Amino acid sequence: MISVSIIGSGNVAQHLISAFLKAENIALLQAFARDKTQLTHLLEADKITSDYSELKEADLYLIAVSDNAIATVSDQIPFTNKLVAHTSGSVAISDLNPKNRPAVFYPLQTFSKNKEVDFRPIPICLETEDKTDYDVLQKVAHSISDTVFEISSEQRKALHVSAVFVCNFVNHLYKIGNDICTEHQVPFEILRPLILETADKITSLSPNEAQTGPAKRNDTTTINKHLSMLTDENQKEIYKLLTKSIIDNGKKL
Amino acid sequence: MISVSIIGSGNVAQHLISAFLKAENIALLQAFARDKTQLTHLLEADKITSDYSELKEADLYLIAVSDNAIATVSDQIPFTNKLVAHTSGSVAISDLNPKNRPAVFYPLQTFSKNKEVDFRPIPICLETEDKTDYDVLQKVAHSISDTVFEISSEQRKALHVSAVFVCNFVNHLYKIGNDICTEHQVPFEILRPLILETADKITSLSPNEAQTGPAKRNDTTTINKHLSMLTDENQKEIYKLLTKSIIDNGKKL
Repeated sequence: MISVSIIGSGNVAQHLISAFLKAENIALLQAFARDKTQLTHLLEADKITSDYSELKEADLYLIAVSDNAIATVSDQIPFTNKLVAHTSGSVAISDLNPKNRPAVFYPLQTFSKNKEVDFRPIPICLETEDKTDYDVLQKVAHSISDTVFEISSEQRKALHVSAVFVCNFVNHLYKIGNDICTEHQVPFEILRPLILETADKITSLSPNEAQTGPAKRNDTTTINKHLSMLTDENQKEIYKLLTKSIIDNGKKL
Repeated sequence: MISVSIIGSGNVAQHLISAFLKAENIALLQAFARDKTQLTHLLEADKITSDYSELKEADLYLIAVSDNAIATVSDQIPFTNKLVAHTSGSVAISDLNPKNRPAVFYPLQTFSKNKEVDFRPIPICLETEDKTDYDVLQKVAHSISDTVFEISSEQRKALHVSAVFVCNFVNHLYKIGNDICTEHQVPFEILRPLILETADKITSLSPNEAQTGPAKRNDTTTINKHLSMLTDENQKEIYKLLTKSIIDNGKKL
């Protein structure tokens, strides 16, 4: 049994708590929440603390708080030489207080409070400073996920930027698509199969092979029709920039 | 039995031919291809013609050619008062020669030559000039798809622009994500579960609810870290514009 305590009460913390409660070989010892009520629907009250001095000794402390709070939280852990991992895609391992053994446990997924997440297919990116710690972290990661990768801080930064493009920015394009449908009284639901197929396609084709549409064909008639239809300046600007980028990319191929 | 002939030999035409060959209550009469060899892997030779004068009488002619050829092709059909539908998202119904009964049969999906497509979940958007024609077109659409919508030319234009955002532009963001991974020697496959979850999310959440990431949180520290990591000017420009758009949208909510 590996004992794990989780510090944090937001989206990621809550999803991790749920996952570890179901995991074999993991004892979820405690969770730290500034506001205990954030976690009472998930854990018994005696396992939730809002006082760092009440933290018990665990094999692993997982810090799942906002990026800018990670360093401060790692200072507050009232132990030394313990394994302490943060869960962020964009914070360096060196931001953790070196009085403990720093590590990273980064689940590469987008977590929303109102949607259940199955951790099994979620890649977990691990980083530690030595092999023994890696083995512990790997066991913990495998207890909830099927895919575990050793990823350096440099690689993780690249993954995180890339994730912003393929997840956050992609979702914003869904939002614009939704706005255009609303404006023209078309149900956005009609586009869902297209959205799913577009995502599914790149499991069998490279994004370059999968590219379709007027920009790919350099079909200026359609591009100009579309631009004249868009009433929102911001939408127009995004349309122009992404169209130009697709056309320029086509010239390089 | 409704007899259907397909004019065209590209992606959409080929996927439609495959679908109608399996459909009940549909007799695929002929396909027209300028280059017959494009279709010989799908159809017997005597069903393929490259001569408009060889076209037989059918209940429906489906024009699946590039947008700018639709009008010309509709001129060539050697009949009058037949039901003739194009399959484009961005061409008006009025572009078809009025000597026949014009209609639109627009399957809202992205078709790649090398990936099989299941038509059942694909929405087909129909437009006709009268009710009797609509009934025929609806029967044909339902023979291959579970979801059929009556969509006006105006609505279809909006859907098509929207599809460019949620499909073509989204795929281009996948391409940029792939490029960043390659540059930093991280396997792009790590991002696939995130990509699928991002698409899947909006079947249960609105895009506004589903939005996450540094721009959503207005986390300028992370945003600046990301910008300093990107080496490609085009990637930087896209990052800045989409980040600004997400931040501005947050202010409106």
